[in-house]
Amino acid sequence: MITSREIRLKSRPVGMPNADNFELVTVSVPHPAPGEVQVENLWMTVDPYMRNRMAHRTSYAPSSQPGKEVHGGAIGEIAASNSTMYGWRPSFQLGDALEGGAIGEVAASNDPRFNPGDLVSSVFGLPPQAFLGVAGMPGLTAWVGLLKIATLKPGDVVFVSVAAGAVGSVVCQIAKLKGHTVIGSAGGTAKCAFLKHIGVDHVIDYKVTGDLTEALLHVAPTGIDVYFENVGGEHLEAALAAANPFARFAICGMISQYNAIGLPDGPRNIMFVMGKSLRLEGFNIANYFDHMPEFQREMSRWIHEGKITWKETIEHGIENAPTAFLKLFRGENFGKMLVKLR
Amino acid sequence: MITSREIRLKSRPVGMPNADNFELVTVSVPHPAPGEVQVENLWMTVDPYMRNRMAHRTSYAPSSQPGKEVHGGAIGEIAASNSTMYGWRPSFQLGDALEGGAIGEVAASNDPRFNPGDLVSSVFGLPPQAFLGVAGMPGLTAWVGLLKIATLKPGDVVFVSVAAGAVGSVVCQIAKLKGHTVIGSAGGTAKCAFLKHIGVDHVIDYKVTGDLTEALLHVAPTGIDVYFENVGGEHLEAALAAANPFARFAICGMISQYNAIGLPDGPRNIMFVMGKSLRLEGFNIANYFDHMPEFQREMSRWIHEGKITWKETIEHGIENAPTAFLKLFRGENFGKMLVKLR
Repeated sequence: MITSREIRLKSRPVGMPNADNFELVTVSVPHPAPGEVQVENLWMTVDPYMRNRMAHRTSYAPSSQPGKEVHGGAIGEIAASNSTMYGWRPSFQLGDALEGGAIGEVAASNDPRFNPGDLVSSVFGLPPQAFLGVAGMPGLTAWVGLLKIATLKPGDVVFVSVAAGAVGSVVCQIAKLKGHTVIGSAGGTAKCAFLKHIGVDHVIDYKVTGDLTEALLHVAPTGIDVYFENVGGEHLEAALAAANPFARFAICGMISQYNAIGLPDGPRNIMFVMGKSLRLEGFNIANYFDHMPEFQREMSRWIHEGKITWKETIEHGIENAPTAFLKLFRGENFGKMLVKLR
Repeated sequence: MITSREIRLKSRPVGMPNADNFELVTVSVPHPAPGEVQVENLWMTVDPYMRNRMAHRTSYAPSSQPGKEVHGGAIGEIAASNSTMYGWRPSFQLGDALEGGAIGEVAASNDPRFNPGDLVSSVFGLPPQAFLGVAGMPGLTAWVGLLKIATLKPGDVVFVSVAAGAVGSVVCQIAKLKGHTVIGSAGGTAKCAFLKHIGVDHVIDYKVTGDLTEALLHVAPTGIDVYFENVGGEHLEAALAAANPFARFAICGMISQYNAIGLPDGPRNIMFVMGKSLRLEGFNIANYFDHMPEFQREMSRWIHEGKITWKETIEHGIENAPTAFLKLFRGENFGKMLVKLR
């Protein structure tokens, strides 16, 4: 029996979440039961989708319950094992890295969300936290959204919102390495400079530009063919306005809407969906995890070839996980937002 | 040289069109030039899409120009021919029915939009005006939207707006003959009774129901899987609210928006596209005309088997074509809106 600390949802946020919505709780973790392993997490991830689970909604995904731990991604090492067979891998070594499914310092689990083995850094030569970002769920989200949902075609002009984020920055780089003209929107000088650095052709700083539609049409005078949607609101209207006929929108996230109280304004030019034969398609990356092995092979190759890079913003200690989470909604993360546990 | 009368756009409508936006003009039609035929139109059609062409927009479709004739569909008989070879058909007989492309009593044309031969009623045993409705462009729109865009799957619950219209009533009947549960929205007792008559499972009279979302959820407690969008506005919000995960929306029309001055409100719950992995796809039937022969074979068989029926609302004389057109936007048509020329 050892102790661990975990973050629990204290109350459902109304509007913008704040630190009072969370509490840090010390818990006892028993020795793993037969079939279980015990994982000491090294890194935790906080991601925008977690906000939606904190709302009381009937949706495909179970909502987080007040008084219960907040679920999210983590990666750690096996500290104790009472398993000789776990999934398709015959046995575990102490120290093996595992992707976990709960935000805590130590997790004991036979939870199938633990994806052992092929995620460890020894296979791909990447640091473990990369599997929470560029080579994990956010990277897969970029890859699936661009290639499977938006069905990127030769010559497409690609517009990406939240382009310096964990997902958006990978979208930009995949589109660039495939030879596309890429337009990225981000907020602030540092993020925009990073986008230039990774080869984005036209960067829009939405915090200082005036009318976003005008700004987009200015850099995309012949229109856009693909829009990777991470933010919603004014960006979606601009993309609808600039879309060419038959443009495809991968609707990945709408972070500007997550903290809305009541119903936010909808895109007033939604009629372009009809007038320009557009396709808007939302997706939940959880339905595409079967692509993970193919994606990780391709992504690790791109990283080693120097074609994909990434940024991390790190908070230290599980007690700062809520801080990390809240920064997502203030645009204070730059690339992947992570919490380093030890 | 004979005379004909045609409808011209006098001025671009602002908001709801009115009779003053149109004028009836008498023109001289010369004897057909070599390669041309002269068609005396029997029936003209007015359709909602024509409203969008009257606006000054940069879009895929050419806009109607003030002072010029309004283009639309018509079907008529060959009155004179100076052609021995027209398209793939070797020759024309006087009296052959042709689908035309201009709103006029007599048209002389070698316009490729004239689709001769396989549209004539003698082939399918249907009255000629059926090829302006159930067996023509509106019917094809229903067939393509439901089967190719919404990709109807076994078990889908289908919601149709403007369900008693030329397109919507065909959508309802195709979905019913394929065994689906169908929910139709229309305005007024007569239209709703017709929907019941053609087998629609649940009919919503949007003019008397209170909250449309509540009404839809009441008749579709397990949600909808396909939405055939003809109207926009509150109906789109209701469909987004009631949509099941992976629902597909065929965005065919948004007639409630066509006369908007300025930008109308957008769907406030657009975030469901992401949250429920929805696909919203707009389409322009002009890009699917290659399906016409297959569609017409199938549709004429369904009609002769008694599986598909239709309603017509008829105005008489070309001078009443603007009246017929304006009725579309006041919901005063019941099924296909037609103008009988002689």
